[in-house]
Amino acid sequence: MAVMEKTPVAVLGASGYTGAELLRLLALHPFFEVLAVTAGSHQGEAVGDLYPSLAAAYPGLVYGPNDEAALAALSGVEVVFCALPHGASQEIVPALLPTVGHVVDLAADFRLRDAALYPVWYGEAHSCPELLADAVFGLPELDRHGLPGARLVAAPGCYVTAATLAMAPLVKAGLVEPSIVVDAASGVSGAGRKLSETTQFCTVDEDFLAYGLLTHRHTPEMEQAIGAEVIFTPHLAPMNRGILATCYARPAPGQDGDPLDVLAKAYAGEPFVVVSDRSPSTKATLGSNAAHVTARRDPRTGWVLAICALDNLVKGASGQALQCANAVMGWAETTGLPLAGLAP
Amino acid sequence: MAVMEKTPVAVLGASGYTGAELLRLLALHPFFEVLAVTAGSHQGEAVGDLYPSLAAAYPGLVYGPNDEAALAALSGVEVVFCALPHGASQEIVPALLPTVGHVVDLAADFRLRDAALYPVWYGEAHSCPELLADAVFGLPELDRHGLPGARLVAAPGCYVTAATLAMAPLVKAGLVEPSIVVDAASGVSGAGRKLSETTQFCTVDEDFLAYGLLTHRHTPEMEQAIGAEVIFTPHLAPMNRGILATCYARPAPGQDGDPLDVLAKAYAGEPFVVVSDRSPSTKATLGSNAAHVTARRDPRTGWVLAICALDNLVKGASGQALQCANAVMGWAETTGLPLAGLAP
Amino acid sequence: MAVMEKTPVAVLGASGYTGAELLRLLALHPFFEVLAVTAGSHQGEAVGDLYPSLAAAYPGLVYGPNDEAALAALSGVEVVFCALPHGASQEIVPALLPTVGHVVDLAADFRLRDAALYPVWYGEAHSCPELLADAVFGLPELDRHGLPGARLVAAPGCYVTAATLAMAPLVKAGLVEPSIVVDAASGVSGAGRKLSETTQFCTVDEDFLAYGLLTHRHTPEMEQAIGAEVIFTPHLAPMNRGILATCYARPAPGQDGDPLDVLAKAYAGEPFVVVSDRSPSTKATLGSNAAHVTARRDPRTGWVLAICALDNLVKGASGQALQCANAVMGWAETTGLPLAGLAP
Amino acid sequence: MAVMEKTPVAVLGASGYTGAELLRLLALHPFFEVLAVTAGSHQGEAVGDLYPSLAAAYPGLVYGPNDEAALAALSGVEVVFCALPHGASQEIVPALLPTVGHVVDLAADFRLRDAALYPVWYGEAHSCPELLADAVFGLPELDRHGLPGARLVAAPGCYVTAATLAMAPLVKAGLVEPSIVVDAASGVSGAGRKLSETTQFCTVDEDFLAYGLLTHRHTPEMEQAIGAEVIFTPHLAPMNRGILATCYARPAPGQDGDPLDVLAKAYAGEPFVVVSDRSPSTKATLGSNAAHVTARRDPRTGWVLAICALDNLVKGASGQALQCANAVMGWAETTGLPLAGLAP
Repeated sequence: MAVMEKTPVAVLGASGYTGAELLRLLALHPFFEVLAVTAGSHQGEAVGDLYPSLAAAYPGLVYGPNDEAALAALSGVEVVFCALPHGASQEIVPALLPTVGHVVDLAADFRLRDAALYPVWYGEAHSCPELLADAVFGLPELDRHGLPGARLVAAPGCYVTAATLAMAPLVKAGLVEPSIVVDAASGVSGAGRKLSETTQFCTVDEDFLAYGLLTHRHTPEMEQAIGAEVIFTPHLAPMNRGILATCYARPAPGQDGDPLDVLAKAYAGEPFVVVSDRSPSTKATLGSNAAHVTARRDPRTGWVLAICALDNLVKGASGQALQCANAVMGWAETTGLPLAGLAP
Repeated sequence: MAVMEKTPVAVLGASGYTGAELLRLLALHPFFEVLAVTAGSHQGEAVGDLYPSLAAAYPGLVYGPNDEAALAALSGVEVVFCALPHGASQEIVPALLPTVGHVVDLAADFRLRDAALYPVWYGEAHSCPELLADAVFGLPELDRHGLPGARLVAAPGCYVTAATLAMAPLVKAGLVEPSIVVDAASGVSGAGRKLSETTQFCTVDEDFLAYGLLTHRHTPEMEQAIGAEVIFTPHLAPMNRGILATCYARPAPGQDGDPLDVLAKAYAGEPFVVVSDRSPSTKATLGSNAAHVTARRDPRTGWVLAICALDNLVKGASGQALQCANAVMGWAETTGLPLAGLAP
Repeated sequence: MAVMEKTPVAVLGASGYTGAELLRLLALHPFFEVLAVTAGSHQGEAVGDLYPSLAAAYPGLVYGPNDEAALAALSGVEVVFCALPHGASQEIVPALLPTVGHVVDLAADFRLRDAALYPVWYGEAHSCPELLADAVFGLPELDRHGLPGARLVAAPGCYVTAATLAMAPLVKAGLVEPSIVVDAASGVSGAGRKLSETTQFCTVDEDFLAYGLLTHRHTPEMEQAIGAEVIFTPHLAPMNRGILATCYARPAPGQDGDPLDVLAKAYAGEPFVVVSDRSPSTKATLGSNAAHVTARRDPRTGWVLAICALDNLVKGASGQALQCANAVMGWAETTGLPLAGLAP
Repeated sequence: MAVMEKTPVAVLGASGYTGAELLRLLALHPFFEVLAVTAGSHQGEAVGDLYPSLAAAYPGLVYGPNDEAALAALSGVEVVFCALPHGASQEIVPALLPTVGHVVDLAADFRLRDAALYPVWYGEAHSCPELLADAVFGLPELDRHGLPGARLVAAPGCYVTAATLAMAPLVKAGLVEPSIVVDAASGVSGAGRKLSETTQFCTVDEDFLAYGLLTHRHTPEMEQAIGAEVIFTPHLAPMNRGILATCYARPAPGQDGDPLDVLAKAYAGEPFVVVSDRSPSTKATLGSNAAHVTARRDPRTGWVLAICALDNLVKGASGQALQCANAVMGWAETTGLPLAGLAP
């Protein structure tokens, strides 16, 4: 039996939460192997010192620098995952792209098709708008045809994935009016690893509040992916992981189809989407790449309700990026990805 | 200086969470003293054994039975708080009312003015609908004129108090269309003390989910108190206490007033309502009788957003009941009630 | 009826957790009123903006500076609470003491009687060791005789209060060998408000670990208060508040008395100490000034076990400081202090 | 390339937490496949309905009954995992053992070598004591020589694994006196799925307390595995998973070796044990089969401290059972087992 040689990958920005989660998932992957990891402020540190959770899996791995020499050394690497803060990818991807096989970006840098939205929502113009048209939006359940062989994949954000999986099929089917309320809650890891008073334990524990009122940057990405106007209110829930998007829309005139049927048809055969009349629970997705969705119509008021739960660091970030990388490589999308979640 | 004699009160159903919270608050009250407590399944047990949190404050207090003899013994008590499960108050209040000073009910039994709503939302007809017209709905910030001297007060539910404080002034001012999305999250204590798989630690911890989809019993009470159609989705958040209601409405045609101004005017001088442009945090209300509200209009989509946070066991239940009892007695509503919350 | 004039107090360092908790408790106090609050880094900020939990209770209060002019302005204030970081009190108390009625210090600055211990455990010599002999150690249940009228009170630390209430009576009674294992867990608020990676939500939530192995600064204070050698391991538990100290000692030769009896006798009549054969729960003390203790002897191995639970910010800090201030003023120690805790 | 045929396994008692965790881990395993699952009270129910976390991984799997016919149908299965409540395995293993390849038991039924301990600690005599001598105690890092081909494996308990990994090498090396304090904290999942007031969210959240004072059933198993007298106090921490055992012992006379060196030598080359001078964190082990240990000697008092952290449902139960099954089959112990944990 011939032993398959493993495909080398690199993770840029591996000291953040999505980078660490990529390393956790890559440790389970049968075909990829981690060649290099980089980190802005932790270079030279052992991965297992910053994340003791990774000490047993990566005993000798050390963060390299994020500088130009380090990027040059990635030449020939098959897949580079960029788990960098927003804005950093657009600086390096133009130079990186010609030298490596494929880039999967986990930030917002290549998600919006309309470059004009960047200054409005992100505060500055895009530095390489010519690449936006080439980037494939990496939400396979919505549209996977561009993924095999793609050079540049923009994996969507966590809130966007949740709201889109719940609502996009209903909008596409014409079931609802295209003005949608997305009321969502996220675990604290969604805010990233950066030190902040708003994410201190004594601030967040036993607390629930809305943030980013009317101004959250994921809004235009949702509108693009769902194809409707969105009013979006994210909330912070006292938990590590998980996103629940509860979405509301008025029925389109004359439409009275069952929204759960629409979702069931849209996701038939999708290994990572569980459609059910159960109310989705974020905990059911902990550590897995699954998303759970439901929908129903209120017979009393006519409003349509659709809900999606997922793990923001897996299906909402690193798991989705790996699912896309599998598709890019032409492998089964499920390769090496956990279908089962931790319970409890 | 003459020592004021304390006014005796009784708490029926004192073994539940709202009963225990009443006892905590009554231990701080300068004018009330607890004469008797009853409990269905814990009679004969010391209060401090069931709730060690109350052991130092009530060293000798024992739960009495909820039976007829016990109720007869309450004759002459000034205020009786009923912290019983739904349906129990309507069985005993008709006989209790003529023998005691005042009854403050914390359940839904006397909240709905329209008796026809009970079979629809609670599954059976009301047993003494003739009392509904006499019951005063106990949300002082909305309408306190009937409280002084009231014989029967129906303190509103936790979700209802939150959604109503956020939205009622906006609806009354004609600022929004009368079809409102109320998306709310509650701590687990809102489910009560009853043993259940859905409230086990390992079910709830690190989880966020919606429940009672489209069918929660507080809906008609909200519609009555706010004066608008409501689509309501409650969620369970992994925390002990706290309710946050995030409410959405379309602007009424031609209305472009600032919703925060409307709230500020509506609650000017209210000691328990904090109006601010901060996003309200449930934790800021922990253990206190305060509610925090904000509101704003989305310049992009026109939607109006209003949010309220409170402690479901204080302003959402026992604190509000005590505030009402203070008003019934003709005392300042703030008497003995905590204005400051625990932080952290 | 003559209205009693309230006694003015000031809180220095009121932006920290113990300062905020003092303000919460002072809002319930019938005789004290807050004249001034100071804060190092938040001066000029409204108390209700930094702690929305205090917004309803202190609508107009603003943090003043911690500078000399501000301290001079405290001249004549009856009680000054110092809720400052370690080291700050010894800098200001010598000048403050002659101008105000009484100082109650919540830090370690005046707790150790032996000045030589400060360089060993705190890294630098004490700047006014001559005051150490005058400071009264403020653990009333251990020794309250020096409190009435005391000019300077050093309120003990949270871990120390817990371990001492559990073990001091057993050591004093000669029941156990004077070498004690104190294994304790604390909620995260014990680490204070300072921003740190170790207290970020995503670090602490769902985690339990030991810290300060063999080197925690409370060790010598425990040894002084208990009167025995102590090996102390603190742990961080994923909760806001609460300390549980589980203590182990070998029986003294020939001693076979019941340790629970010893505790019951030691604390007979103490309003804030609940002695019981129940295993103490930190949650039973949430927000109250009560401490719960138990003890038993292992018939199999001979080891003696004693446990104490308390709220680190109340009986472990601000509540105890207020209890001491009550004693200093000659009032009942329970004046204005919550005996009942929040449950749940 | 020949496709390897998968080895069929069954999980008895798969509706409990350790059963569900076995299913999560088996979904990642390359060589085992789940043939049958049984459950006492949930038979006929879909696994994905009881555990939505398993819905995507086991879409059609349904719990079978635990009855005799079902057990007979297991004839020929290679490995049967028993995840049953204590006492159930000894009833069925004598009949099961001759018909299947191997049995790995996760309960205490076959852990104690001395049958006389069962009536003392478990309240009744063992029903098949003759099997105790044949059962292999499944803690590979302590002793793995009996595992390959073993017919009956008794996987040790969660507390026992933690305390033993920390202390057994120190006792074996003669470094400490053989009387050990084990002070441990566990997440709530250690109590199992059974409904109980003590594990309701509102009881446990924000609480920390000791339980089973001096009487916990794991005590004799610890004494057997460590080879020393143990006084053991377990605590309940407000988290789903994780065990931290903090252990204390007096040094043996004349012994002053470094306990961390002893641990490092004992676990050199062990893939699942991380030895470090970091204080072990339960969270670093979440979802992985790794255990983290440290140790040090107190230069001031002489006491020796050793600490171990692990995930009670993985290395403390189902992961360890699977590690043993790998060893039984003659495969690498790491086969299919996660080395990396979730963070955060």
